[in-house]
Amino acid sequence: MNTSASDLLHTAHALADAAAAQSMAWFRQPLEVITKADESPVTMADRAAETAMRAVLAAQAAADGIYGEEHGQERLDAERVWVLDPIDGTRSFITGSPLWGTLIAALEAGRVTLGMIDMPVLGERWIGFDGVATRNGQRVRTRATTEIAQARIVTTSPDIFNAADWQAFDTLSRQCAMRRFGGDCYGYAQLAGGTIDLVVETGLQPYDYLGPAGVIEAAGGVVTDWEGRPLGLVPDCRVIAAATPELHRAALAVLQQRN
Amino acid sequence: MNTSASDLLHTAHALADAAAAQSMAWFRQPLEVITKADESPVTMADRAAETAMRAVLAAQAAADGIYGEEHGQERLDAERVWVLDPIDGTRSFITGSPLWGTLIAALEAGRVTLGMIDMPVLGERWIGFDGVATRNGQRVRTRATTEIAQARIVTTSPDIFNAADWQAFDTLSRQCAMRRFGGDCYGYAQLAGGTIDLVVETGLQPYDYLGPAGVIEAAGGVVTDWEGRPLGLVPDCRVIAAATPELHRAALAVLQQRN
Repeated sequence: MNTSASDLLHTAHALADAAAAQSMAWFRQPLEVITKADESPVTMADRAAETAMRAVLAAQAAADGIYGEEHGQERLDAERVWVLDPIDGTRSFITGSPLWGTLIAALEAGRVTLGMIDMPVLGERWIGFDGVATRNGQRVRTRATTEIAQARIVTTSPDIFNAADWQAFDTLSRQCAMRRFGGDCYGYAQLAGGTIDLVVETGLQPYDYLGPAGVIEAAGGVVTDWEGRPLGLVPDCRVIAAATPELHRAALAVLQQRN
Repeated sequence: MNTSASDLLHTAHALADAAAAQSMAWFRQPLEVITKADESPVTMADRAAETAMRAVLAAQAAADGIYGEEHGQERLDAERVWVLDPIDGTRSFITGSPLWGTLIAALEAGRVTLGMIDMPVLGERWIGFDGVATRNGQRVRTRATTEIAQARIVTTSPDIFNAADWQAFDTLSRQCAMRRFGGDCYGYAQLAGGTIDLVVETGLQPYDYLGPAGVIEAAGGVVTDWEGRPLGLVPDCRVIAAATPELHRAALAVLQQRN
């Protein structure tokens, strides 16, 4: 009997649906609504969305642990821990860009067994589960790029790096065929979908990188920290995601030369 | 009788529809389709879309002039000139990002009488016409921001600037409340929609900036070059777009100090 696998997927969809119902209600609200609130609309939306997600878990998986961006940690010693970022890309959200998303990971024995990048404005739900990655149910795979000179690299902003890390990113990205800025979590979706090859970022939290990592690994990519270690519940992490193991190895070598 | 105004709008919609039918057919094409083509998919898409747009003009406004990105210039001395960019944001297009758009401007006696930013993947059509800006028919306005310290600024990438211009942008953007990278033409739509306040870029062509300028001016904003001159058919232009005249004046002063 394999109900637990379909239960896991069912719960993940329910979490994303619950988050989107809250976040979309706040996105691009008219100014009069925003100014009435005591807090910024993105803070309101973030909290309301995570509260809704926690209600889903209380109903469907009460024994599971939770590592959430907004409302903290519970039962991290449980067999399964849900890692939740209701709105990744709060600046995109604030500035009316569609490139913010809800990130979800199920972590079991330290490994991501399900990862999700849900993009409510775009209507795109990216899932990595059981070795298969999909966008809205359609299978996706990373590109076959193995060499830095052929790679397209993306990061959210030069402003996320300290000086030494920027030097490392700059050195690597100037060797690539193309470098792009912006996009927040959507860069990881693009990588899983085979339209870019590298995402390199710093200062990420587990709820920022575990959901994307689950999607990318199921699509054939590799995601580690800048030391090449597998990702876990490590705060302030420097993350490198690559389309292939060969590209990952080559890019990591450049980052490490500079560190 | 005011049929010419509604004709103008009708033609603009027909142009955007014709472009989208071509560009969307090429967006995120499976790899086997791409590798069969002799040229990159974005080049194919760009040319096919502009050809379709020119067919619309031949049918609906044969006397008008055309200034297009792909297929050059015709009748620039006509009473009305259509300025066309079938796919603005070719790197977004290539990398599977939804933030590319079709830009259209109707230029009469050197002034933009209609501007359009059409975002086919997002399903958002932004129009500035007759002093009114709309997104999918719903009226939009720029924010009331007058001070740099309150402003949110966006530009596509640090890589679009030469060293001196980057210094100017960097000095200005560090005084802002928020700076963001990425987004291509969508930054101008965000400005018209009141979610960001400044877009500052360099190296733009008339087909890159005239459509957006028409939308932003109708939404209450100001768009000029870095010398404060109104925009026309000037190649390689440095563009500043601001939510209000006061913010435009203040930001321009900072850019000019550094130039």
